[in-house]
Amino acid sequence: MLVIGELLNGMFKAVGEAVRTKNKDVIQDLARRQVEAGADFLDVNTGPYSKSPKDDMKWLVEVIQDAVDAPLCLDSTKADVIEEGLKVAKKKAMINSTNADDSKMESILPLVKKYDTYVIGLTMDKKGVPNDRMARVELAAQIISKCMEYEIDLDGLYIDPVILPVNVAQSQQPEILESMREIQVVSDPPPKLVAGLSNVSQGTKFRSLVNRTFLVMAIANGLTAAICDPLDKELMDAMITAELILNRSIYCDSYIDAYKKR
Amino acid sequence: MLVIGELLNGMFKAVGEAVRTKNKDVIQDLARRQVEAGADFLDVNTGPYSKSPKDDMKWLVEVIQDAVDAPLCLDSTKADVIEEGLKVAKKKAMINSTNADDSKMESILPLVKKYDTYVIGLTMDKKGVPNDRMARVELAAQIISKCMEYEIDLDGLYIDPVILPVNVAQSQQPEILESMREIQVVSDPPPKLVAGLSNVSQGTKFRSLVNRTFLVMAIANGLTAAICDPLDKELMDAMITAELILNRSIYCDSYIDAYKKR
Repeated sequence: MLVIGELLNGMFKAVGEAVRTKNKDVIQDLARRQVEAGADFLDVNTGPYSKSPKDDMKWLVEVIQDAVDAPLCLDSTKADVIEEGLKVAKKKAMINSTNADDSKMESILPLVKKYDTYVIGLTMDKKGVPNDRMARVELAAQIISKCMEYEIDLDGLYIDPVILPVNVAQSQQPEILESMREIQVVSDPPPKLVAGLSNVSQGTKFRSLVNRTFLVMAIANGLTAAICDPLDKELMDAMITAELILNRSIYCDSYIDAYKKR
Repeated sequence: MLVIGELLNGMFKAVGEAVRTKNKDVIQDLARRQVEAGADFLDVNTGPYSKSPKDDMKWLVEVIQDAVDAPLCLDSTKADVIEEGLKVAKKKAMINSTNADDSKMESILPLVKKYDTYVIGLTMDKKGVPNDRMARVELAAQIISKCMEYEIDLDGLYIDPVILPVNVAQSQQPEILESMREIQVVSDPPPKLVAGLSNVSQGTKFRSLVNRTFLVMAIANGLTAAICDPLDKELMDAMITAELILNRSIYCDSYIDAYKKR
């Protein structure tokens, strides 16, 4: 599993405040703790209250790179904000995200080519989030097709079937989970799958329990990456165990420690 | 999910001792606690050290029924021991188990008919446990076919794909999980699926974590029943949450309590 640490996001109060006051310590501490806990990538999002998101993105990328070696997942709805991060990113970055809209893909995919990045493709478009599995599969196919037009290496594409909160979109959950299996049939080799995990538990009482249970079910259905909280130890233990059960790491009694030391 | 409490098994030291000394209190306490924790059925097994398993089975069934109303899952390798329990079982019982051997099925399936019971069918035969998913599917098909010969209601058949310990049969785990999906294609409506869950964690260090992670993955793949420890609260919480995510119970903030009060 590719773990994309979600915590460097200005929508979290402490991070939003640190971005505003340019407090490096808060940002770098959160970067280090996520990497130590097992994050492979760090998501970077200036948050909804940033007054100069391009400057803030550049500042965040530079500050984070001063603290850790992990590659970054540049997260913004605006292509120019993402590009500001790409200009200073030292490692091969990930773009979070495009969706299946032609105009969106036409603004994001050239950046994927120009900066040689990974990219997350959300199975939604102008009409919003689809309400069944087949619509998700069709949108995934559109993204894959557009990536091929742009001659983008599909190995760097992560399809995100758009996770919705279980408390308001409960009937969607089996559709989302099964869409993961069906999206894998769209191309050969199958596209990679990522999920913005914490969405599933938005507004629920037992957030960590809901997150880790959904994660394990999604892994059983082919999920290969997750944007999640690597500091949630129970989540990480469940993820590591699910991967063990799928025979992706070798069993030893200390398999959890072994994973983290990999 | 149908939860079959696994704790009334003479292989556990305290239970074996209680069977030997005919200590009702130990048995009835364990019966009550499992039912209170959410067990729908109670597995009953005299254990490997019983000197008169037929008498012990009868005694166990009677003692348990004096304490709780839950139906019982009569667990023995011997048909005559199972029948001794069936003779005194007050509610529709489950037989644990037949396998795909003709001689085994010919000793067990007549009991299913005679006593109108549910039955667990293990996907193994004289040659042992198969080492891939297709062999499991074929053995499931043989059991289904034999049940049809005996005019047994397939709604009462639970196929068990034979769970093996992850620490010694790690490469088997994806085969076991995927066989659950493929077995469901064998008949229409699909056969129910049960798992002797605790096998997966035999000899591992983090037994509960391994059990609940495997359980959640199996539920994602169609598992409908589990022989497991209902007193493992984290296991039950994970199971209840997985069912919630599959939209099998209605979300409310107190969904875990709501499940137990159902």
